[in-house]
Amino acid sequence: MSVIISHDKLKDFVLQVFTKMEVPAKDVLLAASVLLSADLRGIDSHGVARLPGYVRLWRKKRINANPDFKIVHEMPSTATVDGDAGLGLVIGPKAMAIAIEKARIYGTGWVAVRNSNHFGIGAFHAMMALEHDMIGVAMTNASPLVAPTFSIERMLGTNPICYAFPSGNEDPVVVDMATSAAANGKLELAQFQDKQIPEGWVQDKTGGSSTDPHILKAGGSLLPLGSDRDHGSHKGFGLAATVDILSGVLSGANYGPWVPPFVAFLEPPTNPVGLGIGHFFGAMKIDAFRPALDFKNNMDFWIRRFKEAKPAAGGPAVIIPGQPEAMAQKDRELNGIPLLPYVYDELTKLGSEMGINFK
Amino acid sequence: MSVIISHDKLKDFVLQVFTKMEVPAKDVLLAASVLLSADLRGIDSHGVARLPGYVRLWRKKRINANPDFKIVHEMPSTATVDGDAGLGLVIGPKAMAIAIEKARIYGTGWVAVRNSNHFGIGAFHAMMALEHDMIGVAMTNASPLVAPTFSIERMLGTNPICYAFPSGNEDPVVVDMATSAAANGKLELAQFQDKQIPEGWVQDKTGGSSTDPHILKAGGSLLPLGSDRDHGSHKGFGLAATVDILSGVLSGANYGPWVPPFVAFLEPPTNPVGLGIGHFFGAMKIDAFRPALDFKNNMDFWIRRFKEAKPAAGGPAVIIPGQPEAMAQKDRELNGIPLLPYVYDELTKLGSEMGINFK
Repeated sequence: MSVIISHDKLKDFVLQVFTKMEVPAKDVLLAASVLLSADLRGIDSHGVARLPGYVRLWRKKRINANPDFKIVHEMPSTATVDGDAGLGLVIGPKAMAIAIEKARIYGTGWVAVRNSNHFGIGAFHAMMALEHDMIGVAMTNASPLVAPTFSIERMLGTNPICYAFPSGNEDPVVVDMATSAAANGKLELAQFQDKQIPEGWVQDKTGGSSTDPHILKAGGSLLPLGSDRDHGSHKGFGLAATVDILSGVLSGANYGPWVPPFVAFLEPPTNPVGLGIGHFFGAMKIDAFRPALDFKNNMDFWIRRFKEAKPAAGGPAVIIPGQPEAMAQKDRELNGIPLLPYVYDELTKLGSEMGINFK
Repeated sequence: MSVIISHDKLKDFVLQVFTKMEVPAKDVLLAASVLLSADLRGIDSHGVARLPGYVRLWRKKRINANPDFKIVHEMPSTATVDGDAGLGLVIGPKAMAIAIEKARIYGTGWVAVRNSNHFGIGAFHAMMALEHDMIGVAMTNASPLVAPTFSIERMLGTNPICYAFPSGNEDPVVVDMATSAAANGKLELAQFQDKQIPEGWVQDKTGGSSTDPHILKAGGSLLPLGSDRDHGSHKGFGLAATVDILSGVLSGANYGPWVPPFVAFLEPPTNPVGLGIGHFFGAMKIDAFRPALDFKNNMDFWIRRFKEAKPAAGGPAVIIPGQPEAMAQKDRELNGIPLLPYVYDELTKLGSEMGINFK
C-alpha cells in the first residue's frame, strides 16, 4: 500500500528541507527539481526516498550546502569542475549547463566533475540538452557494490550511463541504466518486500549464486550487467570501468573501491585517491553534425519502427528506452506520487526533526 | 588444428589483395594494418577471415575501392564524413584522425560517418588516440541480427562500442565489446565447431530459448547483452540503440533494420533511410581535463588495484579490459597468427582467383 502525495506538496516539503539545510536560495529549487524528477519518472529509489540520507550526510559535514563551485581547468570543448563537496543535485545541472554552452559554440561540450556527491538520476542532467536540440550524456561513479568478473570484491558502483536523444513528435529516446545486472534500487525494493531475487543479480561472499536480496549485508556483491562470464559480465564490468574512469580518474575524483559511501553510517576511506565522487557530462549539438530537423524526423521514424518490431506471440510490445519513465511522469504530474509506507514514515520523521510539516 | 602464418607473410598477402582490388596505393597499407590488427589481437572473426567477404562485396560494386572521402559538415569539435561507399578499414582511421586533430585544438573531437562499410575492429580506431595522450572512442552500427527485448525481429547489429584509455607503464585499458550477449564471431566459431552454445545468446523464431548456433538460419536472432528482461536485456538493447543512433541517425547513414548486410549474397534493403552503414568516433585530450601524467599515473594505479581484486577461491584473477588482446598481440607478432583450416582454405582459394600466391 502506497501513500499518494501530490507533486506540488512533495516539492514544497523538499524545498523546506533544503532551505533548512542552508542550501542557498538560488539553488534550492534546482536541487528539489532534480531530486523530484526521479519520483516523477518512477525511479523511486533516487527521489525523496534518499532525502533523509542527504540530510544525514549534511549533518556529518560530508555535504557542503553552500559550496564554491568552480571550473579548475578548461579547453574550448571541455571543462573540469570542482564541486567543493556540494550537493550533486546542484553541481550536476550546473556542470551540464557548461557542457551545453560549450556545445552551442564549439559543437560539443564535455565536463568532468570531481568532489561531488550523489547527483540524483542521470536522466535529469542528460535531458537538459534536449530543449537545445542537443544529445545529452551523463554518468557518475558511485560507492563500490559491484564485483568485477571473476572477483568477489566490491570494486565498482552501479555506475549508471545516460544518453538522451532529441526527437520530433515522439517522446525522446532516453537510455538511463545502471551498468550492473540490476540497479541497487531494485535490490532495495526486494529487501523491503523480503522477496527472492532472480539468480544473476548478486553473488554471495564466496562467489556462489544467491537469490537473497540481503546478501550484500553478508559480504555478497552485485554482479555486472551480463551476470556471468558466459553471458558477457566482462562487458558490464568494462562499461562500469569506463564510467569510473571518465567520472573518477579523468576528473580527479575518487575511483573504484575508494569512492566514498553515500550513507552516513559508513565512513569514507581514509586513503582517498581523489576528491569526492565524480561525474561526467556531455552535450552534442545536432546541428554540428546534420540539420536538427532531419535528425528529429529520423528519430521519430526510428522510434515508430522499433515500436512496431514484431513481438513474440502473446508477448508485450517493444519498449522504447525512456518511454515508461515519460508515461510515469505524465501520470504522476496529474495523479500524484505514490510513496512506500516506510518512505512516508521516514519523511514524516525527518519533518518533525527539522520542524517542517509533512502529511 | 590451426595453420600458423607469420604476420609479415599474411600482411604481404593482404596488401596484394587490396592492390588487386584497386585500392589506391596510399590506402593499401592502412587497410591491411586495420584488418590485421584484428588477427594480431586475437579477434579472429574480424581479420583476414573477412577478407574474401570484402572482395565479394567489391566485385558486386558495393565497396568503392577509390572513394571520394569528404567532410560534409563541421563545427570546431565535430565533423560529419561521407565515406562514398569506401572500405571502412580506410574511412575509419581517416575519420578518427580528424577527431584527434580537433581534440588537439579544441579539447575533444567527434566525427560521425555515413556511407561506409565494415571498419574492422573498433579497438584499432579508438587506440589511435592513445599515442596522443587522448581517450579514444569508436562505435559502428551493423546489419541487423539482434532482436530488442520482447521482440523476435532482427532490428539491430551487434553494434560494438570501444573506449581506449591511455596508461603509463601498464597496458592501456581498452573496452571493446559487442552490445549483444555474445559477439557474432563467437557464434560463428560455435557454428564451425558445431557446438552447442549457452542459453541466453540467441532465441528461436518464436522467442523461445535455444542453444543451437545455427538458429539464425532458421529465423532466430541474437539477444542483447543481459539476455532477458530480468537480467537487463533492455540495457543491452539501450546500448545497441545508442550506438545505432550515434552512428546511423546522427550521420545520415542507414539505421536499425535498414543497415545493409555485409555479405554479398544478401541484397541491401531497397528502401534505404540513409547512406551505407555508420560509425561514430571520438577523441578526448587528457590535458583538456587534467595533466596527462597525473591521469596516466592514476590509470596505472587503477589497473594494478583491479588486477588485485580478490578472486573467488580457486578461480582466475580479474582480467583488465584489453589485457588478453594485448597479450595476444605480443604473442602473435612473435610467433605468428593461427588460422582455422577453413580460413586458410578460403584465403588459398581467394589467392588463386586473384593470381596471388598464398601458402
